[in-house]
Amino acid sequence: MELCINAKDAARAISVAPTEIKNNAILKIGERLHRERESIKSANERDLERARKSGLDRVLVERLRFGDSKIDGRIRSLRTIAELPDPIGQYDDFVQRPSGLRVGRMRIPLGVILMIYEARPHVTVNAAAFCIKSGNAVILKGGSEVLETNKILGKIITDALKEFDLPVNAVQVISTSDRSVVQELLKQNDYIDLVIPRGGEKLIQYVNETSRIPVIKHFKGVCHCYVEKSADVNTALDIVMDSKMLMPEVCNALETVLVQRTAAKEFLPVLKREADTVNLKLRGCKETRSIIDTDEATEEDWYTEYLDTILSVKVVENVDEAIDHIEKYGSGHTDTIVTENIKNADRFVSAVDSSVVLVNASTMYNDGEEIGLGAEIGISTEKLHARGPMGLKELTSYKFVIRGNGHCKKS
Amino acid sequence: MELCINAKDAARAISVAPTEIKNNAILKIGERLHRERESIKSANERDLERARKSGLDRVLVERLRFGDSKIDGRIRSLRTIAELPDPIGQYDDFVQRPSGLRVGRMRIPLGVILMIYEARPHVTVNAAAFCIKSGNAVILKGGSEVLETNKILGKIITDALKEFDLPVNAVQVISTSDRSVVQELLKQNDYIDLVIPRGGEKLIQYVNETSRIPVIKHFKGVCHCYVEKSADVNTALDIVMDSKMLMPEVCNALETVLVQRTAAKEFLPVLKREADTVNLKLRGCKETRSIIDTDEATEEDWYTEYLDTILSVKVVENVDEAIDHIEKYGSGHTDTIVTENIKNADRFVSAVDSSVVLVNASTMYNDGEEIGLGAEIGISTEKLHARGPMGLKELTSYKFVIRGNGHCKKS
Repeated sequence: MELCINAKDAARAISVAPTEIKNNAILKIGERLHRERESIKSANERDLERARKSGLDRVLVERLRFGDSKIDGRIRSLRTIAELPDPIGQYDDFVQRPSGLRVGRMRIPLGVILMIYEARPHVTVNAAAFCIKSGNAVILKGGSEVLETNKILGKIITDALKEFDLPVNAVQVISTSDRSVVQELLKQNDYIDLVIPRGGEKLIQYVNETSRIPVIKHFKGVCHCYVEKSADVNTALDIVMDSKMLMPEVCNALETVLVQRTAAKEFLPVLKREADTVNLKLRGCKETRSIIDTDEATEEDWYTEYLDTILSVKVVENVDEAIDHIEKYGSGHTDTIVTENIKNADRFVSAVDSSVVLVNASTMYNDGEEIGLGAEIGISTEKLHARGPMGLKELTSYKFVIRGNGHCKKS
Repeated sequence: MELCINAKDAARAISVAPTEIKNNAILKIGERLHRERESIKSANERDLERARKSGLDRVLVERLRFGDSKIDGRIRSLRTIAELPDPIGQYDDFVQRPSGLRVGRMRIPLGVILMIYEARPHVTVNAAAFCIKSGNAVILKGGSEVLETNKILGKIITDALKEFDLPVNAVQVISTSDRSVVQELLKQNDYIDLVIPRGGEKLIQYVNETSRIPVIKHFKGVCHCYVEKSADVNTALDIVMDSKMLMPEVCNALETVLVQRTAAKEFLPVLKREADTVNLKLRGCKETRSIIDTDEATEEDWYTEYLDTILSVKVVENVDEAIDHIEKYGSGHTDTIVTENIKNADRFVSAVDSSVVLVNASTMYNDGEEIGLGAEIGISTEKLHARGPMGLKELTSYKFVIRGNGHCKKS
């Protein structure tokens, strides 16, 4: 595919681009987003209108919106990414060995990255900035629902690359609704080094099964909060409600709360009261339902990523039972414990095998910006290469550099 | 497959084993190698005898040998691995964010590793020690030529695990010549997290094409040495000869020397004289053959990993032409420059896209022990996860640990 050959050529050129040039291009994208926000918003309005007409659910239509607050968020994020240190050319370490050899790992870009994502235009801007900064070329295949929005964003990005003499093919935004293009792209293992799919479980399954290129992904987020007796009831309630209700539609939103048996009688009625206030539906285990009135949770519920204002509730004996439940039903994404018991906190941290494990904090903190990555290009529940939120460094590889002064092994 | 289920169970248990216990088991393997060296050597002799009878080439038979010097080497290596810091449970970093959250990446084992390797019994010992130390379970499928040697080594390893109450299935040495076992193992993506094949290009191609599990590998090592005019002739000769002749059969052995045009008249006759002395066959480009008498190098030679006492020789204009040649014909494995010109050294280091790039040092230094990894479990020319020689850290992943005190995002 010509676009892949172009991407590979662009990758070579951008891999050695100076930091300042890359930063200038990133900042320029932000300037243009600000200056052209009216055209961007009207392109986005046309996408929304089309989506509405096609009968798309109101909530889903809202996810396509790229309005002032989203635009301002991107402008801030672009500034943050420009300010982050450039990983390329940096050494992880550089040490002198007993032989006198000096040895280090130098960070290099991965090459060509393919992102396949569903309808969220802000991903277009974030991924472009991340890849420019890390010296990679990227092919961006967004959802066809926001075709017009992505088209104008793509134009802004290309112009910025051109203005600073960076290869224009370093960021290629594909604006087509032809699904066979994706199928073709996933075969290009000679040209593409990594695929990052973002979207529903079905999309990710499809990419994972079809691709001959390495894929970094998470399938779903069945996230847990385990509440201990030792925890302050209000703290526990705040963390549960923040984790569940701030953005119920995202992958790190809470789906199941596990309550220590000795805490159940005090905590569950408080949870129930708050849930009723904000229209959160609870589905409880048998023991939960003997304390508060909820729908019944079936075996299937424990496996389910609701992405909705539903929360399953289970009573467990202790931290070990909570860990066992998470191991059996969880998805290795994001899990948190609320406790004042330091031993149980440490046990939870070491035993829960998830990409992000929290203590006394909302699952909403599985977020690249909050943990210092600037933003994130994706979240991985893989163990190879990258795990959890992926920032700039996760878009790099390294080479060993070894410097001697005539060193031969046979001495 | 039952052996995979057992490996997964063992992985869970060994992932939390204390450092001291793991070290004791590793040291015990070394003690037993020393104490039982006579039985090991006679098992190995039986393998060698069988190989000879089957008509295997003398050089290849020698590669199967596990004699005193190999045994002593392993005992030393086991001590080194026991002394290396345990990566598991360590944090790459742990910082406080403006929000007051403390965030870090904690190292964890990968899980279950499958190693498929051809006939070198020392790999059995090294890989077992590496995986024990890094808290992984490993399935070791070695070449059937050294079946008896691997059997006794497997017994020693299992005994050591048992003695220190570590799960015996953490290291499973498969002693079978049935090739369908490999085929079956490569399907077990629910149980095995990573495959590391080591051996000839054909084996690695087969594993790569068959496996549904992630594979870390290098196909071949077409390694280069570029000699500049500014280099001292004797230094250059030493590095070329060490890189080529110390172990011609290994993947980081030199295959092509590139000589700067202005250095050719001085360097090539010196190279020719030395090559004749040690019976190294040269294959030269046209320009080389106008200066010294060599066989003719064809286009195919530049792509060839000889793994033999043959060296191809080409005259190039300068560092850029050398880089272009390496990019076109190289395999991204190991390449070195001999120069006194600092600018050209830096240019070579940044532009050559290989897993190990050296300056004024022999390609033999692509070696886990020499660069501080203790030993190595494999060499990767991939860009994802690990590149170059793989040590303990390359057998780990991480999880983000986030600690708050009631942190909620909506404030």
